[in-house]
Amino acid sequence: MPASPIRRLVPFAEAAKARGTHIYHLNIGQPDVESPAEFWKAIRGFGDKVLEYSHSAGNASLRRKMLHFYSERGIDLGENQIVVTTAGSEAIRFALMACLDPGDEVIVPEPLYANYLGFACESDVSVVPITTHIEHDFRLPPIEEFRRRLSPRTKAILVCNPSNPTGALYGADQLEELRELVLERDLFLIADEVYREFNYTGQECPSVLQMAGLERHAVMVDSVSKRYSLCGARIGFLCSRNGEVMTSALKFAQARLSPPTLEQVGVEASLAAPQSYFDAVREEYRLRRDLITSELRAMEGVVCPRIDGAFYATVHLPIDDADVFCRWLLESFEHRGRTVMLAPATGFYATEGLGKQEVRIAYVLNREALGKAMECLGEALNAYPGRTEAPAPRLAHS
Amino acid sequence: MPASPIRRLVPFAEAAKARGTHIYHLNIGQPDVESPAEFWKAIRGFGDKVLEYSHSAGNASLRRKMLHFYSERGIDLGENQIVVTTAGSEAIRFALMACLDPGDEVIVPEPLYANYLGFACESDVSVVPITTHIEHDFRLPPIEEFRRRLSPRTKAILVCNPSNPTGALYGADQLEELRELVLERDLFLIADEVYREFNYTGQECPSVLQMAGLERHAVMVDSVSKRYSLCGARIGFLCSRNGEVMTSALKFAQARLSPPTLEQVGVEASLAAPQSYFDAVREEYRLRRDLITSELRAMEGVVCPRIDGAFYATVHLPIDDADVFCRWLLESFEHRGRTVMLAPATGFYATEGLGKQEVRIAYVLNREALGKAMECLGEALNAYPGRTEAPAPRLAHS
Repeated sequence: MPASPIRRLVPFAEAAKARGTHIYHLNIGQPDVESPAEFWKAIRGFGDKVLEYSHSAGNASLRRKMLHFYSERGIDLGENQIVVTTAGSEAIRFALMACLDPGDEVIVPEPLYANYLGFACESDVSVVPITTHIEHDFRLPPIEEFRRRLSPRTKAILVCNPSNPTGALYGADQLEELRELVLERDLFLIADEVYREFNYTGQECPSVLQMAGLERHAVMVDSVSKRYSLCGARIGFLCSRNGEVMTSALKFAQARLSPPTLEQVGVEASLAAPQSYFDAVREEYRLRRDLITSELRAMEGVVCPRIDGAFYATVHLPIDDADVFCRWLLESFEHRGRTVMLAPATGFYATEGLGKQEVRIAYVLNREALGKAMECLGEALNAYPGRTEAPAPRLAHS
Repeated sequence: MPASPIRRLVPFAEAAKARGTHIYHLNIGQPDVESPAEFWKAIRGFGDKVLEYSHSAGNASLRRKMLHFYSERGIDLGENQIVVTTAGSEAIRFALMACLDPGDEVIVPEPLYANYLGFACESDVSVVPITTHIEHDFRLPPIEEFRRRLSPRTKAILVCNPSNPTGALYGADQLEELRELVLERDLFLIADEVYREFNYTGQECPSVLQMAGLERHAVMVDSVSKRYSLCGARIGFLCSRNGEVMTSALKFAQARLSPPTLEQVGVEASLAAPQSYFDAVREEYRLRRDLITSELRAMEGVVCPRIDGAFYATVHLPIDDADVFCRWLLESFEHRGRTVMLAPATGFYATEGLGKQEVRIAYVLNREALGKAMECLGEALNAYPGRTEAPAPRLAHS
């Protein structure tokens, strides 16, 4: 199992806190948005005396309501095409195990969600990375790049859309090329769509489950963690129209008996949250996105690409080594008693040596705090001994 | 992934219910005991507005209280020797992944908890079964039998103590031989001790964590599902003094981010439940054990072994095929509008062909219902067309 560069920073963060330094946590995707009132009401009103196992595929009533939720968004699924999972994490693991055999390969654009590497390791499959670049706003590379990475053991392509950690959003045109490739080579297209609502483009982003002809190929991973600010609930979903994949996923689900019962009841109630809940959340994140984009772009030597979705940005900094810089921020820097905790991008690349001048920023704080965090970062870049003056990458579309 | 013989019965159970037949569910380990009042109080009083991730190893306060819980029971562990897991299921999976590499072998006495086979499949390791026999009350076989199953790929022995599905309890004498063997061959001894409190012998059963010299070898799987009747909470624990095992387990824990947050708060409060809670629960199960033992032993051709722990019995029936019989009970039999659902023991053997005349009974119903279920079973055995008159096994110790 790969060790996480973020985890390695935790002791330094704890030491900084012990010294009385305030830390702005931009290192993890834990939103500060309140969980829906409907969730808390359902939890407090739960009347059973025994907290029993749920169905291994999740409560039937929750599955039905999720199907309705998807249907309202143009995704029509049958009742055997969804399994409730213990968060998106388990859905990814089930997807990899259901679609790949040990030794098989899955192509994943990098920088990537670091835990994909952990789940691949657990499932004994190989992640074959395909590098995306900040110069191109981390869009998907030309389809020939994907073709070059195909091997007889390639069984799937996995994308996170919108992307954690880059904030890139792959539109219909980019997905279309993937669609043709997976059809041609009979691969699975696994899409982690847990940030679907966090789309700032004003245009609908298609789910892989809406793409024509992918009935046997498309597998969708979903979660309520970000959508309803319920990270701690550990409720997610795996959806596919491929019967074999779902039969296999159900067996994995049965082996672990059931997802958490109480949280399912709360999540089911949360589905009644009005559209205005999402609209308000998205608008807030859009404003945060605007704030960090303009603040970062005003800093000398910093490159902030276009951010269309999710609540992350992977940005270039004028530094020698992101791991060293992020540790230095916690160990040796403060500005008015404050510092900022960032995630070195090295942990988001499967290719050794990449990401040394990049960090991931999760803009999960309110705008006042975000503004102060950006001020801290600007001061830090001026003070950092390892600052480099090498030319920064140039955004092709800016 | 192996398919479960119990799962295959579900459609027949649903059809029986649709016909209006009442089913006594002795097929799953879902206790009818109420979850502790402390759990519900803590859940209703939870005051956070955002349901956040917990620490990947679980809330520090819960871990501290669990260490105190273990300490009071003679198991002293340090703070890095416990990880909170998403139920015992995840603890077993983490234990297998942390102790074995893909292709390695784990020796497990059978009949065994069927989901071990699923988790082994997910972890790409092989279960090497060692058969235990009803004639000997499903005690562990002589240590030479274990030796005969060792190979260069053997990395661990896994026992469930007290045992699901047999109700056998392995005492200090039986564990001592395993202790010597794992020391001699440098193997892991993984013990699933989730039924520890369900011990009807009046004698303490040692945890593997209490056995001398096993600091590097012993790994313990625990859960609150049965202890506090919190099956739906999905909270368990993995404990070991082996630092490498715990480091590895923590990485798996970090990849899936965290166990359910809210349930951890409820479980922490449940630890305040007085000893009288356990005493009352154990006494109730002891009486149920007595009831089914005497009822079963009064039936012609039925063999019920000695049951010392957990709340299961694997019993011999005078039938041709347990899978056929269990399906017949749901499809073609009723007694006064009632029938009984049992688990065919075939699903609990890794060795093909074993368990065809055995079923697992989970005595998780109140005594009135259990008595009626036993009456149903007796009538069914008299009416079953596949009844055999072959001599039944004889209990060596009775």
